[in-house]
Parts: sequence; C-alpha cells; structure tokens
Amino acid sequence: MRHARFRDPSGAVRRGEWHGDAVSFAGDEYDLDEVDLLAPSEPSKVVCVGRNYVAHAEEHDADVPDRPLLFLKGPNTVAGHGDTVTLPAGKERVEWEAELGVVIGEQAKHVDADEAMEYVAGYTCVDDVSNRDDQRSESQWVRGKAFDGAAPIGPCVADPEHVPADATIQTRVNGEVEQDATIDQLVFDVPALIEEATQYMTLEPGDVIATGTPEGVGPFEDGDRVEIEIEGVGTLEHEVTR
Amino acid sequence: MRHARFRDPSGAVRRGEWHGDAVSFAGDEYDLDEVDLLAPSEPSKVVCVGRNYVAHAEEHDADVPDRPLLFLKGPNTVAGHGDTVTLPAGKERVEWEAELGVVIGEQAKHVDADEAMEYVAGYTCVDDVSNRDDQRSESQWVRGKAFDGAAPIGPCVADPEHVPADATIQTRVNGEVEQDATIDQLVFDVPALIEEATQYMTLEPGDVIATGTPEGVGPFEDGDRVEIEIEGVGTLEHEVTR
Repeated sequence: MRHARFRDPSGAVRRGEWHGDAVSFAGDEYDLDEVDLLAPSEPSKVVCVGRNYVAHAEEHDADVPDRPLLFLKGPNTVAGHGDTVTLPAGKERVEWEAELGVVIGEQAKHVDADEAMEYVAGYTCVDDVSNRDDQRSESQWVRGKAFDGAAPIGPCVADPEHVPADATIQTRVNGEVEQDATIDQLVFDVPALIEEATQYMTLEPGDVIATGTPEGVGPFEDGDRVEIEIEGVGTLEHEVTR
Repeated sequence: MRHARFRDPSGAVRRGEWHGDAVSFAGDEYDLDEVDLLAPSEPSKVVCVGRNYVAHAEEHDADVPDRPLLFLKGPNTVAGHGDTVTLPAGKERVEWEAELGVVIGEQAKHVDADEAMEYVAGYTCVDDVSNRDDQRSESQWVRGKAFDGAAPIGPCVADPEHVPADATIQTRVNGEVEQDATIDQLVFDVPALIEEATQYMTLEPGDVIATGTPEGVGPFEDGDRVEIEIEGVGTLEHEVTR
C-alpha cells in the first residue's frame, strides 16, 4: 500500500491511496491533475543525515563519520510533489541531493534498532536541497540547509515491504541521470539511524528522517525540472526557480 | 501587558494575562498552583544564535562571528516554567545558557531590520540547555543542542516596551548568581537577527529566536533548580534531573 496526502476538488485535505497516476479516498478516485498533491506528511522536524554514502563523502573530500552526522530542517523547508522551489537569492551553487526518506508512524523515544521498523509508517523520496555558498562558510548548516522549500518530499509513503532492500535511487535533472545508486549502500541503515536519533529526541508521527545522499550531486540552473525516483516508492518531481 | 499560556482547572488551554504570582483569563484569576503553566508559545522551530555576547565567546576561546551563528532546536526541545528537564543519559557536562527569547507574532519573511519589531509578539526567557559532551564532538549541534527538553521557555511573553533596552539577564542556580549581564551587550541585536533569519526562512507566529547567552555558563548537577530572570519579563524556573 502507498499513501498520499492531497486536497480534493472540494478543498478537503485527504490521506488517500496512491496509484501512481491517480489517488483515491473513500471510494472516489481522482486523476492527479484534479487534486493538489501535498507533502505526504507534516513533519515537526526533518532529521537529516550527512555523509551516509561512502562515494558521496569522497566527492566532498570528507570522511564518513564514525557515528551518524545529524542536522535539522524545520517545517518551513517542506515542499511537495509538483512544487517549484525558489532558491535563496544571490547564491551561485544550490544543489540537489536525492535521499531515501523515512516517515515515522508512531511516537518514538529510546528505540532499539531491532524494534525500529515498528515505528516506521513508510518510505518516501526527499530532495535535501543544499545551498553550498552558505553551507561552506557557516559553522551550523541553517542558511545552507534549512531555508524555505529546502526539503521537497513525496510523492507518497510506501510500506517498507514494497521497497527492495537494494532499491535503486536515481536523480534525473531535465531528463538526464545525475545520481544512480542503491539504498543498500547506506553506511548507517534505517534502524541504526532511528536508534541513534531517538536516544536524544522524540520522533513524532509524520517526522521524516532523510538518510543521506549518494554521489552525483550538482548545481541547479533556473527552471530545472528534477525527478527523484526510488524503486518501490515512485518519483518525486519538482522544479526550481531563482 | 504580559501573557502566559496555561491549562486552567477545567483542563482548557488558555492564553491569559500574567500577573507574576497569578494568571487570569476572561475575568477569572487563578493562583499559579491552580493551573498548569505551559511554554508561552508553541514554536514550529527555535532559531538559536551562538556567540552573540563577546564575553561568552571568549570563555569558550571562540571568536565572535562576522554574521550571526544560527542553529536550530525542534519542537521536541520545548519545556515550560516549572518543568523538570531530564538531561541526556551518561553525559558529564550539560550546561545552562540564559537567553533573551523573541516570540514572533506575525508570519515574517524578508523583513528589514527597521521594520522587524512589528513582527515581534514579545520577549521571554529561554534556557538554551547544552550537552557539551556531544556538542564538542559533532559537526552539527543536534545531540548537543536539540535533545528533548533542551529549551525551557517562559514564564510569559512581555511586550517589548516593558523591557528596558539595557535589561538585566541573570541566571541563579540553587539561589547562587551564575550569569549576570545586560541585553544591550548583544553583538547582533533583535532587529538584525530577524532580518538575517528571514532572508532564509519564514518565521511563524509562536516561533522563538534565542538570542545567545552571556558569560557564566556552567554544568548542572542532578536536582539543580535554575532561575533565569530578565528585567521586565520575569523569572523562568526549572529543575534538572539525570
């Protein structure tokens, strides 16, 4: 089962079933152009992980850390499938980062890795949009990572059993493949990330863990159209403007 | 005028008037022991500022940055007046940091400093509780700064006109003065911080900017009782436990 959040033609916000080219709720099915697709959850926080693929750490000349590198994005960063993200003004290098997103289903604190999947509602796609101009000059990544629209999420939440352990994760920009990896290359896997984060913070239903990006990040140009596809989940699409 | 949020004896959450030793709503006045005082707002994010007093930067052997050092705390960090904060397990050095908190009143984006105060609901007290064990070893301050309960806020929100430009800010731990400064020592003042933050992110009503701490931080012991007093606002009290 895959779920999506959308505003139906009457304006009501629904959490319905996702069929790839349509959504349904309470027996009514809608084409995607009839509804306003929303981010599939409303996170109180997005817990992000840096340098969690070896090849991406290497493309930044950085080491893989010995425990997860965590950082935060606030609710202001959330955007949905089909949205156009306005990049921060005057920045030269703002980049895509395709990531497997973990949507939390139950309030979670002090969770052991071997029970962590019980707290997962499902998987989604995240673009961890990154403003390198500021990220590289600031101590804490707020201007670089937590600006409005910096976390497009979607298009749906897929039950983990639909997603192969070695699912492909791919970014296409204007149709050209830029990132192409598999999620089994994660240094710290999903249960390990949930255990680590919940030692410090309570994860709420709808919160998202963005698990890090593989190699192949690169800078946006004005008007670029991005597709982030994870096997078993679907394809998150968004555009960017300056 | 000063406001507080509280749960009244019937269980209803009220935003009423703060009288220091009592609160009132709709003509009913309650002693503080009759109500459950809550954090005075429900921030979607707490935008924190590091090294914003020269003497505090020096006590950490750090420079004052040339633009505000921003970092984030999520809603999981919020605690209220009278709460007991459970410190992260097994950490040796978890410290108090008294800060002037700015509560946002209107949705704010791309705000110039000279208009910034129009977006301020008022001032409050914040304890930016800091887990140095992790903060000093991690790239991004999440374990160090964004654990559950790391942002006690309160007891009320005071109109800025009640707060002198050189208001004293003081921390007392078990009655002993540990921090004692004035808010006019801020390197980046409140309007400058609002201008800087809103260049990147939308601030929502209830969001809090924690403006940085003066010198005199120090480590908690189990059972410590903390009072953070800002002239014109009042005194935020909380305890800590391990």
